[in-house]
Amino acid sequence: MLSAMSTASLDVDPALRRRSSAAPACSIDRALQVVSTRSAMLLMREVFYGVTRFDELTARVGISEPVAAARLKELVAAGLLEREPYREPGQRTRHAYRLTEKGADLLPVIVGLMRWGDRWAPAESGAPVELTHLGCGEPVRAELRCAAGHEVTAPEIHAAPTAVRR
Amino acid sequence: MLSAMSTASLDVDPALRRRSSAAPACSIDRALQVVSTRSAMLLMREVFYGVTRFDELTARVGISEPVAAARLKELVAAGLLEREPYREPGQRTRHAYRLTEKGADLLPVIVGLMRWGDRWAPAESGAPVELTHLGCGEPVRAELRCAAGHEVTAPEIHAAPTAVRR
Repeated sequence: MLSAMSTASLDVDPALRRRSSAAPACSIDRALQVVSTRSAMLLMREVFYGVTRFDELTARVGISEPVAAARLKELVAAGLLEREPYREPGQRTRHAYRLTEKGADLLPVIVGLMRWGDRWAPAESGAPVELTHLGCGEPVRAELRCAAGHEVTAPEIHAAPTAVRR
Repeated sequence: MLSAMSTASLDVDPALRRRSSAAPACSIDRALQVVSTRSAMLLMREVFYGVTRFDELTARVGISEPVAAARLKELVAAGLLEREPYREPGQRTRHAYRLTEKGADLLPVIVGLMRWGDRWAPAESGAPVELTHLGCGEPVRAELRCAAGHEVTAPEIHAAPTAVRR
């Protein structure tokens, strides 16, 4: 017989398991509806790297201009990026893309993906990019912690449905 | 004129910006090649919730059986889940899915997506699932911290190419 839980799963409230479908009310799902594609996430990566211009974003992500234009339009519509016009002397008006607060708040997810890729899908030469704290030089990672500051692992996390507010 | 950086972007080493393309060597991209689809990420969510059986996974994610079978096969092939046979009295042999260490290590990304969705794409009734620390009851979130324990924001993070190991 199987135990109900894998050792790496969360401590799950039975009321959450009894739901036949978690999808309609799931924040993970709603987040993925906004940044569901690889190209959207990689465009966000480049904006975090300070790239703002359409042609540079397109080249660095390695996607076609129509795909980049469609993804950037979606990211602007969803409020993760804002688009502002600029014009250099003798050139036509172009647009630059910048992070909004909503977009900037995606950084823990991006860093989490980077750290996971560093560890579990490494390039032959190791982690290609180092993230370090400017203040002290130590490596930066995405950690699971509670509001009291304790670092927590999966079995220490209790997952339960929030009481519905009316 | 534009400043080179958005205020929410990282402190980026010029050598990283000079690369014409970050894609071939990017750990974020390699992570996304493993969990690039919404259905894959939602199946991982369910396994974190302790769901192990094919029919329950399929129903709770709300996808068709062929799609669930394809995604689960990919997640097993990529080493995030392992599949083990089980048999209940009078039934045919079925398979259960469990997290490997590689799969379990994706939790900071999943929690990061949940928290982002809670904040920026909330359901009308608020956050549908609460994650709390079993030890102290405080809410759990994905935080960016350096190895010395400092919580860091984007402009405090220095991103630089790792020196190539030979």
